[in-house]
Amino acid sequence: MKLYDSIGPNPHVVRMFLAELGIEIEKVEVDLMGGENRQEQHLNRNPSGQMPTLELDDGSFLAEITAICEYLDEMNGHTSLIGKTAEERAETKMWVRRIDLQIIEPLTNGFRYSEGYDLFKDRLHLIPQAADDLKEIAQERLQWLDGQLEGKEYVCGDRLTLADIMLYCFLNFGTTVGQPIDQKNKNIVSLHSKLDSLDSASA
Amino acid sequence: MKLYDSIGPNPHVVRMFLAELGIEIEKVEVDLMGGENRQEQHLNRNPSGQMPTLELDDGSFLAEITAICEYLDEMNGHTSLIGKTAEERAETKMWVRRIDLQIIEPLTNGFRYSEGYDLFKDRLHLIPQAADDLKEIAQERLQWLDGQLEGKEYVCGDRLTLADIMLYCFLNFGTTVGQPIDQKNKNIVSLHSKLDSLDSASA
Repeated sequence: MKLYDSIGPNPHVVRMFLAELGIEIEKVEVDLMGGENRQEQHLNRNPSGQMPTLELDDGSFLAEITAICEYLDEMNGHTSLIGKTAEERAETKMWVRRIDLQIIEPLTNGFRYSEGYDLFKDRLHLIPQAADDLKEIAQERLQWLDGQLEGKEYVCGDRLTLADIMLYCFLNFGTTVGQPIDQKNKNIVSLHSKLDSLDSASA
Repeated sequence: MKLYDSIGPNPHVVRMFLAELGIEIEKVEVDLMGGENRQEQHLNRNPSGQMPTLELDDGSFLAEITAICEYLDEMNGHTSLIGKTAEERAETKMWVRRIDLQIIEPLTNGFRYSEGYDLFKDRLHLIPQAADDLKEIAQERLQWLDGQLEGKEYVCGDRLTLADIMLYCFLNFGTTVGQPIDQKNKNIVSLHSKLDSLDSASA
């Protein structure tokens, strides 16, 4: 297998997940800032033009971070990062989708439509007039998530999962683009700090 | 198991998926129009306040349509609706997330922020000034998907999957809220008609 990799929070999620799984995969760097991911060679790998993309042993390509991480976990015999039982896997996927749709999408689109405007204006249909509200929504849902984390060590109770890794990588990304972690969200601050201390965080 | 069910495209996805699996589950109707899903009793089942929600045999609750369908499929011995092999499952999840983020999210938010404004104004943070662009994005990505469907019977080649079911249910929903299927997208029109002829479509 081969991982087409780049800067950005999405590839970071997969690298951190790989590090937590304890496996290494050959990496090929794609120049995201230069727009190499939107050119024909990468579009043949991933027609969405996004990063990262995993090349499987049979030469086919797998995109979308959740699909990639779940596949790698299954190839590794089903670990607690996604879930050892069907019920654990279901719980992880539920929280992954909540964080994906309610927090990551508004946070990243809020960035793309404002600070990221120049980088994305020739790549995506942008909605600059929605940027401020999207950033507010991300913060409102983070506050909601903070309440949901009460009494739990990780998003899925006592298991470190893909949900935590996605949250962590995008919280870090937010911090670099003007959407810092609200220190009033004590449970999120604590979860972030827990993940920040993992060796895998710097993967 | 017990499915907390309501009107709307999300519950429709799960009902159609159940019908394709050929299994029946007890259903409990929740009054979505009356906002019962945003009240305490349902929030205890699903703190996101969304429909549907599956109650498992152990009394725990599972939300998010993708997590619910993948769990039901796994309980049913892994069918081609999600995938019989790890590679098939990965392909399905990749396309499900593309359709979810690139088409369903802008289509439904486009609705919520305009025609759906009055219904959602006390439930969600709305961005009315983004509605037109969101609807345009949904159409642009449907056009892109139409190209991706060229030469394929279903989104994942010759397999009917959750990706088709989600696309179908939300295309239908779009039609009822002023976002009809663009007849120029021949492959999407053909796929929609294929699913429309299934008995499960009316589930």
